[in-house]
Amino acid sequence: MTSAYQEELGILNHQLVEIANLVGTAMNRDTKALLTADLTRAESVIQDDDRIDAMTSALEERCFDLIEQQQPSDRDLRYLIGALRIAASLERMGDLARHVAKQMRLRYPRLTVPDELHSTFTLMGSIAEAIVSKTGEVIRTQDVTLAADISVSDEEMDRLHRELFSIVMSNDWTHGVEAAIDVTLLSRYYERYADHAVSVTRRVISSVTGEPYAGIALD
Amino acid sequence: MTSAYQEELGILNHQLVEIANLVGTAMNRDTKALLTADLTRAESVIQDDDRIDAMTSALEERCFDLIEQQQPSDRDLRYLIGALRIAASLERMGDLARHVAKQMRLRYPRLTVPDELHSTFTLMGSIAEAIVSKTGEVIRTQDVTLAADISVSDEEMDRLHRELFSIVMSNDWTHGVEAAIDVTLLSRYYERYADHAVSVTRRVISSVTGEPYAGIALD
Repeated sequence: MTSAYQEELGILNHQLVEIANLVGTAMNRDTKALLTADLTRAESVIQDDDRIDAMTSALEERCFDLIEQQQPSDRDLRYLIGALRIAASLERMGDLARHVAKQMRLRYPRLTVPDELHSTFTLMGSIAEAIVSKTGEVIRTQDVTLAADISVSDEEMDRLHRELFSIVMSNDWTHGVEAAIDVTLLSRYYERYADHAVSVTRRVISSVTGEPYAGIALD
Repeated sequence: MTSAYQEELGILNHQLVEIANLVGTAMNRDTKALLTADLTRAESVIQDDDRIDAMTSALEERCFDLIEQQQPSDRDLRYLIGALRIAASLERMGDLARHVAKQMRLRYPRLTVPDELHSTFTLMGSIAEAIVSKTGEVIRTQDVTLAADISVSDEEMDRLHRELFSIVMSNDWTHGVEAAIDVTLLSRYYERYADHAVSVTRRVISSVTGEPYAGIALD
């Protein structure tokens, strides 16, 4: 491998981190927009997702070129294939952030999240923020020891998602079917977002260790 | 490229078709299980998903080996990367089929789908069946002209999903919040399943034509 090639891989990795940051910013804005019915912020998430999509497409093409151009070493090839997968997960995280923004916009100027779920979504937002920031760190440093923290946060997100189900299905729920469906979908977007972050870290682990990727159920 | 290599690619393609068939069988069983509260059938879907996961993992490893073993031509490399992506989409379709089965099992022996949505889910099941069968055909034959049919079916699925929303959110809905959330999630699983099928056909197109993949919003 030439050092120019290694430099290209470094640039690629830098771009993955950049996309992870954008995807993180999108979800942070979403949480704020959701809890304050801030339409401008939601609109900016929707617009920025086009940029995320364009960046991931360009990055995919670049991976493809790099695989073709030179016969990469086993390790570099594993990295490039991992990068393709990570880009796909990040793109989906961006889509999920866009879904949240669109759901909020649908009910604007009403608040989509009733008062008693305010703290749940605040927590979900914090967890999403922590997860995506560590995910960016894992991509940047290839330090796979952070994966355990990310898994713990993901479990906490799952717990909040289940808790929300029991809240909206209880007899105390007074906001009707539409609000119940809205918050269930929103909660699912946050939960899937965290799942994709876990998937990204597992791809990095697999790319670093050469062990097969340990899948996580995604859809 | 040696002819042994071409033969390997042929086997790989055959395996992708096989996974597509399994994923199709799973969703067909789901629809029957859902509409008749047939627990045995639902359980078989849940069990078979482990097989689908194992097959996709094995296939991923095989793609990886084939990329490494020989310096594939541009076309073969495009095919192998496409195959990796298609396997990931099929695996997710299998996960979605498992989600449907688990949702049905959660409410068993009650029917999860109220009478007035029976025809909606019957239709969604037929569309899923048609879509996945054509998707298998596209993978098998690389005949991309079928993609237009698949897109039309996907649009019909989207329409049914939106229609279901308006049914559960109308004042005529008498089944309460839990049932509303159940059918919304189920409908979403069918709709995502169709989206992933569209994504698979676009991957085949991109692999055949060499044009960049035209993405579809997935999460």
